[in-house]
Amino acid sequence: MQGKYKALWLDENDNLVVLDQRVLPFEETTVTITNAQETVDAIENMTVRGAGVIGNVAAFGVYLAARESAGDFDRLEELAKDIRESRPTAVNLMWAVDRMMALAKKKQKLLPANFLKALKNEAILIADEDCERSQKIAEYGADIIEEIMLNRELDTFNVLTHCNAGWLAIVDSGTALAPIYEAQKRDIKIHVWVDETRPRNQGANLTAWELAKAGIEHTVIADNTGGHLMQQKMVDMVITGADRVAKSGDSANKIGTYLKALAAKDNDVPFYIALPASTFDFEITDGVEQIPIEIRSEDEVKYMRGLDKEGRVQELQVVQSQSSALNYGFDVTPARLITGLITERGVCEASVDAVSEMFEDLI
Amino acid sequence: MQGKYKALWLDENDNLVVLDQRVLPFEETTVTITNAQETVDAIENMTVRGAGVIGNVAAFGVYLAARESAGDFDRLEELAKDIRESRPTAVNLMWAVDRMMALAKKKQKLLPANFLKALKNEAILIADEDCERSQKIAEYGADIIEEIMLNRELDTFNVLTHCNAGWLAIVDSGTALAPIYEAQKRDIKIHVWVDETRPRNQGANLTAWELAKAGIEHTVIADNTGGHLMQQKMVDMVITGADRVAKSGDSANKIGTYLKALAAKDNDVPFYIALPASTFDFEITDGVEQIPIEIRSEDEVKYMRGLDKEGRVQELQVVQSQSSALNYGFDVTPARLITGLITERGVCEASVDAVSEMFEDLI
Repeated sequence: MQGKYKALWLDENDNLVVLDQRVLPFEETTVTITNAQETVDAIENMTVRGAGVIGNVAAFGVYLAARESAGDFDRLEELAKDIRESRPTAVNLMWAVDRMMALAKKKQKLLPANFLKALKNEAILIADEDCERSQKIAEYGADIIEEIMLNRELDTFNVLTHCNAGWLAIVDSGTALAPIYEAQKRDIKIHVWVDETRPRNQGANLTAWELAKAGIEHTVIADNTGGHLMQQKMVDMVITGADRVAKSGDSANKIGTYLKALAAKDNDVPFYIALPASTFDFEITDGVEQIPIEIRSEDEVKYMRGLDKEGRVQELQVVQSQSSALNYGFDVTPARLITGLITERGVCEASVDAVSEMFEDLI
Repeated sequence: MQGKYKALWLDENDNLVVLDQRVLPFEETTVTITNAQETVDAIENMTVRGAGVIGNVAAFGVYLAARESAGDFDRLEELAKDIRESRPTAVNLMWAVDRMMALAKKKQKLLPANFLKALKNEAILIADEDCERSQKIAEYGADIIEEIMLNRELDTFNVLTHCNAGWLAIVDSGTALAPIYEAQKRDIKIHVWVDETRPRNQGANLTAWELAKAGIEHTVIADNTGGHLMQQKMVDMVITGADRVAKSGDSANKIGTYLKALAAKDNDVPFYIALPASTFDFEITDGVEQIPIEIRSEDEVKYMRGLDKEGRVQELQVVQSQSSALNYGFDVTPARLITGLITERGVCEASVDAVSEMFEDLI
């Protein structure tokens, strides 16, 4: 590939173009990112979001930062640090910046044009590798779906997902949604329960949009609904992505994932986390204690975006001004609630032993 | 009392006036109900909601139906049946209509004016009894709060609630919120986590409005957030109301309650349901199997109401037209997840034995 993916690509001037995920599904527009500050802004204000795509944007951001700092390596390091700190929970962001800067260090003696070319190629390589990993995750995940269908003699497979871990989140088919796209390719009759995912509605806005584009049957539900559906045997599997996973398998993902994992456990519904190896944080074992959870603006709870009667995108205040709100971005699902981790290397038990064995070379 | 409560009252023409709960907190307006059909409409379209208030409105509705049917008892029975069937899950509704119709049957030989007066007084009596029960629930619930505070040496007591079970739901101080109002009277420092409660936002719209009016500290959170808060020891107790409770203690309440009960169990947070005896359905023991769960319009998920920049109440479409939605109104929390039932007779274990013992005379 040449740096052209569905959610981001390089334009003819080697600037980074991204789909503006803040206005989907009602508007399909792009934002062009030309320097480090614009990279930070796009990540912070969630023009782009999703563990993988944040990593990719950060990697291209380091390339743009290098172009901007024009040979001043100290300046590049400062800008890379800003990018690295733009969101605290997603570990791919830090991983991608570190990888880019390790290369930058090694190549800093090159001629400026060659130095920039090396960084650009590395960012493309990171995204290409994500695509390959995504395809592997798709296959391992779809194998699980086939197995459950066969064992339980299901006609339609009902999967529930929370937030968005499709190609808007991880180029080019995602993590949690990758097995679903693969199942569609294999002609499996699949239906997806899409958690709305308050407060930013990534489920209703992004996952539903992706699935509709792909022609996959789906139904949007309030985040409150999943427990009842599982109790009533209307869910065959839960798959979500993750933003950071401890060596133990404890998984930080969009706030509310933990509640769905509890319901899955209570109703014997298989609960899987799909992730590339780059989402692991092998340094930590207790995810609940050790993963920093981002607190975002209360306005994300207090205001809601949508389409008015005239078809214009508008924002409404949905919480009265006299009340404050608190907005944690993520929660941590303990490993004991997770049936397995679907990775590019295969399906792994959520435990220190199993993770250490499968990813020995990376630890 | 004389038929004057905070959420509903009789006007000088003996029509029923109710606060329009659909437009709170941004507008405080009333709707006047003059006959049986308007009663059905107000319950169906959720001008009024909440187990208790629905029962009260239904009781007054039977009085209005009697006035309308002018001595035609068959007609009255038909109209009462329509009211009784206006929502399927709330058992107080059926209980109140049955009680009114039992009296109507007994009094049908009276002169028309006396017949109507008897029905009006019965409806007032039902509401007055609800007020008394509410006060008892307040006291028993606040006793639990005091006990937990004492045992755990807490400075501030953090309670989480889902949906609205305040005086907008049960005249005149509610069930779940009643102990909170009582704690305030007892000078206990209390803070309430208010679940937004999608899709209709009764938490953000009604509970937050009630608490702000009462000057009680509170914070609105997305429904996804409660699990994380409990995991981080930021919740000392969960209290919700209920719409129908089986003899076993299995409790139907607003969709999403079950998820909070699972999180409470997983984190050793006491989880209480507050309810008057009229919310029990002693005929059933398996709530998950036997309580009918209302499916409401998908538009409640797809559209959201709020205040626009000009301060006008508007509705926005928040799910793309290509996607459908499914909207279950309630879920059932199994008794095993419930620490106790706070009733007007005291706190009762959620089990067939304990409920049968405490409510022996009603079964």
